[in-house]
Amino acid sequence: MLENKNSSSTSLSDIGEFKLIEHLTQEVKIHHKNTVKGVGDDCAVIDKNKLQTLVTTDLLVEGVHFDLSYMPLKHLGYKAVMVNLSDVYAMNGTARQITVSIAVSNRFTLEALEELYAGIHLACKNYQVDLVGGDTTSSIKGMLISITAIGEADKKDVVYRSGAKPQDLLIVTGDLGAAYLGLQVLEREKQVFQVNPHSQPILDDYNYLVERQLKPEVRKDVVELLKELEVKPTSMIDISDGLSSEILHLCKQSKVGCNLYEDKIPLDQQVISTCEEFNMDSTTVALSGGEDYELLFTISLEDYNKVKGNPNFTVIGHMTEEAEGRSLITRANQKIELIAQGWNAIS
Amino acid sequence: MLENKNSSSTSLSDIGEFKLIEHLTQEVKIHHKNTVKGVGDDCAVIDKNKLQTLVTTDLLVEGVHFDLSYMPLKHLGYKAVMVNLSDVYAMNGTARQITVSIAVSNRFTLEALEELYAGIHLACKNYQVDLVGGDTTSSIKGMLISITAIGEADKKDVVYRSGAKPQDLLIVTGDLGAAYLGLQVLEREKQVFQVNPHSQPILDDYNYLVERQLKPEVRKDVVELLKELEVKPTSMIDISDGLSSEILHLCKQSKVGCNLYEDKIPLDQQVISTCEEFNMDSTTVALSGGEDYELLFTISLEDYNKVKGNPNFTVIGHMTEEAEGRSLITRANQKIELIAQGWNAIS
Repeated sequence: MLENKNSSSTSLSDIGEFKLIEHLTQEVKIHHKNTVKGVGDDCAVIDKNKLQTLVTTDLLVEGVHFDLSYMPLKHLGYKAVMVNLSDVYAMNGTARQITVSIAVSNRFTLEALEELYAGIHLACKNYQVDLVGGDTTSSIKGMLISITAIGEADKKDVVYRSGAKPQDLLIVTGDLGAAYLGLQVLEREKQVFQVNPHSQPILDDYNYLVERQLKPEVRKDVVELLKELEVKPTSMIDISDGLSSEILHLCKQSKVGCNLYEDKIPLDQQVISTCEEFNMDSTTVALSGGEDYELLFTISLEDYNKVKGNPNFTVIGHMTEEAEGRSLITRANQKIELIAQGWNAIS
Repeated sequence: MLENKNSSSTSLSDIGEFKLIEHLTQEVKIHHKNTVKGVGDDCAVIDKNKLQTLVTTDLLVEGVHFDLSYMPLKHLGYKAVMVNLSDVYAMNGTARQITVSIAVSNRFTLEALEELYAGIHLACKNYQVDLVGGDTTSSIKGMLISITAIGEADKKDVVYRSGAKPQDLLIVTGDLGAAYLGLQVLEREKQVFQVNPHSQPILDDYNYLVERQLKPEVRKDVVELLKELEVKPTSMIDISDGLSSEILHLCKQSKVGCNLYEDKIPLDQQVISTCEEFNMDSTTVALSGGEDYELLFTISLEDYNKVKGNPNFTVIGHMTEEAEGRSLITRANQKIELIAQGWNAIS
């Protein structure tokens, strides 16, 4: 059967990932009463009495999500685990197990896969996660990694994307934009190398950026810190696609608007200086760069004193009534509509 | 970094899938006491008080595991779910949830993915399983489907591969070899079609074989039946790689030997007649064909009366002391060593 047998056909590139998932899963019917949450958040939630099981999965494709010409395989293995664990922490849960499936073409050797798994094992060790299963198979072309992470949380602790209320404070951990700039630096070095294979990359001025791209760490510590501080966010998401995209997810699913203040967005000094060098706007990079794997969450105003002054957190705005819209308040105090561009739009 | 930077390198094709997984996961350390079973059975097992969570995952790659020139996308979606659910039933559990990740190149249209998901949704409906998450992304080439299935079972009901004892009876459900022959029939029609695109496939004489290949059903019913009969198998596995390979898994993990009787292996009449037509040995097809998705299990002798005469079950042999080896007793009453060949070896 040819897959385009239908006379009316729609190109996938016209749709976009979120719309596509929404479209393909709109018919999903839930059969089990212990399936508390299916498609549509960072993780699925499965009820096991008081404890809930969190499940999330991600697929990384060579040439789409990673480039082995500058991504060492050990780092790739580490990062592939991080991407998944981040979704569990974004539900305010603890990651417990992962399964790892890989498809590889015959250009990869056993030693190459050992490198990849060294990174996976290191991630499991650092985050106290068990590798419990998987599948290994051939691919026609390139490498593909599919990881499913399983976590758990007390029912009362699970935080969804949908709980934000007007007036809630919008908070982000760490700083933003560095991983995206790290990728730009690596891309530039790759091009230099292609012109002159004897050149040695000079990455000293960009070490933070490159590390954020090649060896991201995720915010298990923040989930633990929030428990210590006795703060339960009203909504939470991790930043994988860029700050603006994630804020819009929270707004949409919580049915609220927001005011995001440009001058509050936390940026590392290397991000600022490299943006100047690359002639890029640092706000655009932070809003649309992605791969930061920081946590973005909302808290009710009454919890403000518990997080105030904590160096892990930056209040970057607040939620509003839905009718007020989703706005970026610029440094020049202009109110403009917040839109999700994704990194494709940056140039 | 080049992936073959090491001076000593091992080709993946020299290793084989089982050895590869064993090799790559030998370092796995288990951090959580609720991880009851990690790599090495049909599913991982996670303890949740009395209930245990079962997790399994499979990766299907176009050109390796399926050929879209004769596999309709709806059937592919259905089968991809079956492959995973089968592993949950093989633990004597009930499948509850799945996640589905797909990578597709831009040759696929939205309508093509809708077909695929129609099959996935149908499988979920027929087996009462919830689709709870996933990921959709582009691939450089072809289609790839990664599914993780989550099931559950009472702790006391979970059946591993490792519990078989000498004297236990070896039992298989349904009949074997049909799915493999279905593939041969479809391959032949494809070749005819390539020579003469106006030819119409004549599949009437092979309808059972083709159905077993294109729309396999898995044995949820058997798990329910065993409960009704109050039989708990001592070991169990599903037949995905071929009967001999699965028997050897049970023997290895249970540290026992076996006698398998050639004349007891259940074969459908279409398998027998098509083997004659294709000049193939039906025993070899049943032993090495694979993709039957039947259940293979052992029971202690005292449970024999409970299953005796049940048309769902065929006793095909018994387990022995490990030192006695793993043997096939041929129709000519010769004892030969049982080896796993996999379908690559059939010709």
